[in-house]
Amino acid sequence: MAKDKKVEQITDMDVDFTQWYTDVCTKAELIDYSSIKGMFIYRPYGYAIWENIQHILDTEFKKLGHENVYLPMLIPESLLQKEKDHVEGFAPECAWVTYGGSDKLEERYCIRPTSETLFCEHYKNVIHSWRDLPKLYNQWCSVLRWEKTSRPFLRHREFLWQEGHTMHATEDEARAETQRMLNVYADFMENVLAMPVIRGRKTDKEKFNGAEETYTVECMMHDGKALQGGTSHYFGDGFARAFDITFTGRDNQLHHPFQTSWGVSTRMIGGIIMTHGDNSGLVLPPKIAPIQAIVVPVAMHKEGVQEAAEKLLETLKNAGIRAEIDLSDQSMGWKAAQYEMKGVPVRLELGPRDIENGVCVAVKRTGGEKLTLPLTNVADAVKAVLEDVQKEMYEKALRNLHDHTFDAHTVEEVRDGCQSGGFARMMWCGDEACEVKMKEQAGVTSRCIPFDQEHIGDVCPVCGKPAKHMVIWGIAY
Amino acid sequence: MAKDKKVEQITDMDVDFTQWYTDVCTKAELIDYSSIKGMFIYRPYGYAIWENIQHILDTEFKKLGHENVYLPMLIPESLLQKEKDHVEGFAPECAWVTYGGSDKLEERYCIRPTSETLFCEHYKNVIHSWRDLPKLYNQWCSVLRWEKTSRPFLRHREFLWQEGHTMHATEDEARAETQRMLNVYADFMENVLAMPVIRGRKTDKEKFNGAEETYTVECMMHDGKALQGGTSHYFGDGFARAFDITFTGRDNQLHHPFQTSWGVSTRMIGGIIMTHGDNSGLVLPPKIAPIQAIVVPVAMHKEGVQEAAEKLLETLKNAGIRAEIDLSDQSMGWKAAQYEMKGVPVRLELGPRDIENGVCVAVKRTGGEKLTLPLTNVADAVKAVLEDVQKEMYEKALRNLHDHTFDAHTVEEVRDGCQSGGFARMMWCGDEACEVKMKEQAGVTSRCIPFDQEHIGDVCPVCGKPAKHMVIWGIAY
Repeated sequence: MAKDKKVEQITDMDVDFTQWYTDVCTKAELIDYSSIKGMFIYRPYGYAIWENIQHILDTEFKKLGHENVYLPMLIPESLLQKEKDHVEGFAPECAWVTYGGSDKLEERYCIRPTSETLFCEHYKNVIHSWRDLPKLYNQWCSVLRWEKTSRPFLRHREFLWQEGHTMHATEDEARAETQRMLNVYADFMENVLAMPVIRGRKTDKEKFNGAEETYTVECMMHDGKALQGGTSHYFGDGFARAFDITFTGRDNQLHHPFQTSWGVSTRMIGGIIMTHGDNSGLVLPPKIAPIQAIVVPVAMHKEGVQEAAEKLLETLKNAGIRAEIDLSDQSMGWKAAQYEMKGVPVRLELGPRDIENGVCVAVKRTGGEKLTLPLTNVADAVKAVLEDVQKEMYEKALRNLHDHTFDAHTVEEVRDGCQSGGFARMMWCGDEACEVKMKEQAGVTSRCIPFDQEHIGDVCPVCGKPAKHMVIWGIAY
Repeated sequence: MAKDKKVEQITDMDVDFTQWYTDVCTKAELIDYSSIKGMFIYRPYGYAIWENIQHILDTEFKKLGHENVYLPMLIPESLLQKEKDHVEGFAPECAWVTYGGSDKLEERYCIRPTSETLFCEHYKNVIHSWRDLPKLYNQWCSVLRWEKTSRPFLRHREFLWQEGHTMHATEDEARAETQRMLNVYADFMENVLAMPVIRGRKTDKEKFNGAEETYTVECMMHDGKALQGGTSHYFGDGFARAFDITFTGRDNQLHHPFQTSWGVSTRMIGGIIMTHGDNSGLVLPPKIAPIQAIVVPVAMHKEGVQEAAEKLLETLKNAGIRAEIDLSDQSMGWKAAQYEMKGVPVRLELGPRDIENGVCVAVKRTGGEKLTLPLTNVADAVKAVLEDVQKEMYEKALRNLHDHTFDAHTVEEVRDGCQSGGFARMMWCGDEACEVKMKEQAGVTSRCIPFDQEHIGDVCPVCGKPAKHMVIWGIAY
């Protein structure tokens, strides 16, 4: 019977990180492939991580006054075209609906790649007076971008995300919102996902189509490559003008409102995997782990063991810990490997001798010695272990970021350092031409102009002209 | 200033129920129109009702062991065609994607009208052994049906719903699941939405495309018309055979699993409006009302009033009541009308004299005398009022259902009774031909063969042959 299931081997992450990643996504049962290239199935365990992320972020958004809405998934082509930069960026990757039933449509519709245009159309209907502002809206949905290449979580043709869209009476207020939401993302990634981030501004070349400014949080993966964790955009009144959205101010004059949008997606799950995973599989931050603690009875056939294990489970659940129990007939070795593969932060083993001694044994997914926890007050002890795991994960990721971030003063230094895994800090003149050369000559893209600027040189190493900013370069997922 | 906003008049529901309904949807700020016919915008207040519905149902689904997943929104035409009855039913109302970017697709994809085929494709990948069963999956998403006519909440081209899809080792287990989920819906509608339901089975003519049996909960609206509240389908192993899904049983032989699906949608919000609403607007059941209690200070300029009102608000919120306060400069009359329009279950007024007397005044949305509540223990008192409102709403709707349900023994009786608003109970031979005649001659459709059968005659009034079932007829939204 026990042979019915086995924990399959995964590729060594130091041998082939890409294959290791795909193995983890499928073996940890996060994702499945569908018959359409680039469209993935979020399996229960993968979706449960997203639900935990949603719950925490949604609570935070609402606390800050945002309201959820749901807008249509289809955008008429004429609507998408109202903002020139926006349509240029997105039209090449739109999926187009041309038939409704057996009727050819008079105008084709694209499945939303993002919803700025739809929000603007709606805002025109509901914003009339200064009393209607600010509008702080958010939408949880899926969007579709017809990309050529795909990888689980990192690049889907259809992916799940949230998109915040806000309108404000003044530029200052809109700019403050853009920053505020970037900080919400940064704090979430650091405190909840245990992923240290670099906060900064995108260069003009890398900013969102139609935005005046794009702010970003950039994360470093285990292999030293970059993942853009989330972005927050300031639009000025560009879309508002294009869509003719006006409001009557307190001064009784007509004005255009100022706009922001900001989003994070299930890409973050890819980031969690690549930041924290190891050769035994997934490692999940306790704060978003669907199972925080797995109870595994030892010598389950012995009298009283199953009962004691179930009592332990109840105690943990009653204390608000997401705990489960494995009463299957699989071997202890299989169970250990299985819950390590699934990244469960702590495994609790409980056998006849433990019960006699009034203890259970805790094994942290992050490694280290086995801990003996007294069964009296066990929930508090497990909570403390979970906090330790969360902290250890963040610290390990922070060390990785520090160890693989370096200052560069030549294009070659950037190329060599980033190609072998890492972020380069380099001065830059601000010209897009130099940015393009960096891509050609070093194979890197600008990740951001970090808010924490340092003066590490006077000139741009590409052109030799005076430097304006320190930029982070890297190879991005 | 106070003229900036006003509560607009809505059409009298007894004069024009259809227009009254549309007025409530827009004036209570539940919905907005988009530029695509039949695709609506769920505004914050409307979406918040859906979130409350989701939260309660999702908790219930999970308690029963269901797991959430997310599958792609696109279905390849070849996949949709695998089950013959299914594609025949849905193909005429599919929206078809034919281009990805600038490339014409080799095969066209429809936007999911429902996801049975996608679930089957996935189940084939993940079901191998009896150990993998049952699979109890649910998905929250939007679906698209390219219908010719549309009405807010009742008939959208794109609407929000949940679709449960389960697979079982045995027919008995699958049939039990179909019933279990129908009962979850029925209990939810009665206990949470305060909408009494009739539970029953659909006739073959009315059942879901590809299902062996469809069960339904049918509700009566204020005007005596019917709304199908939710459905639960038993598929046997038909799809499993079409998709070649097999599992190795405990007997070591290959078997096809047995399947169910079940769903409810934002149509329910339309049902809430048409069951409970009145000429002052929306009336929301407290259990799903985004705002359960609105605090309205009286003579706010007087010393201590605003502070006392804010303290009252805090007390209510701390007790878990979804309470808000209106500190705007609008008149008392405007505020009363506004929160009645929005269906807030109880309005709490608090003025200088009330504060002196240590009380506040509660006005139930369902009418009746104003209640004086002591400020000591006010949260419990408000909770009791909310329970009263919930109960009164259910009882009123139940009276409407009873008062407008009648026994009929001729086609004319059905026609006259249903046309003036009501449900007809009539014996039926079971032949589809007679069902078609009822539609032609009485303008009604069979709502269901109720589980609670009564013998109210011997013959089918249409053909005069022996009757098999008692059927409920009505005019449906």
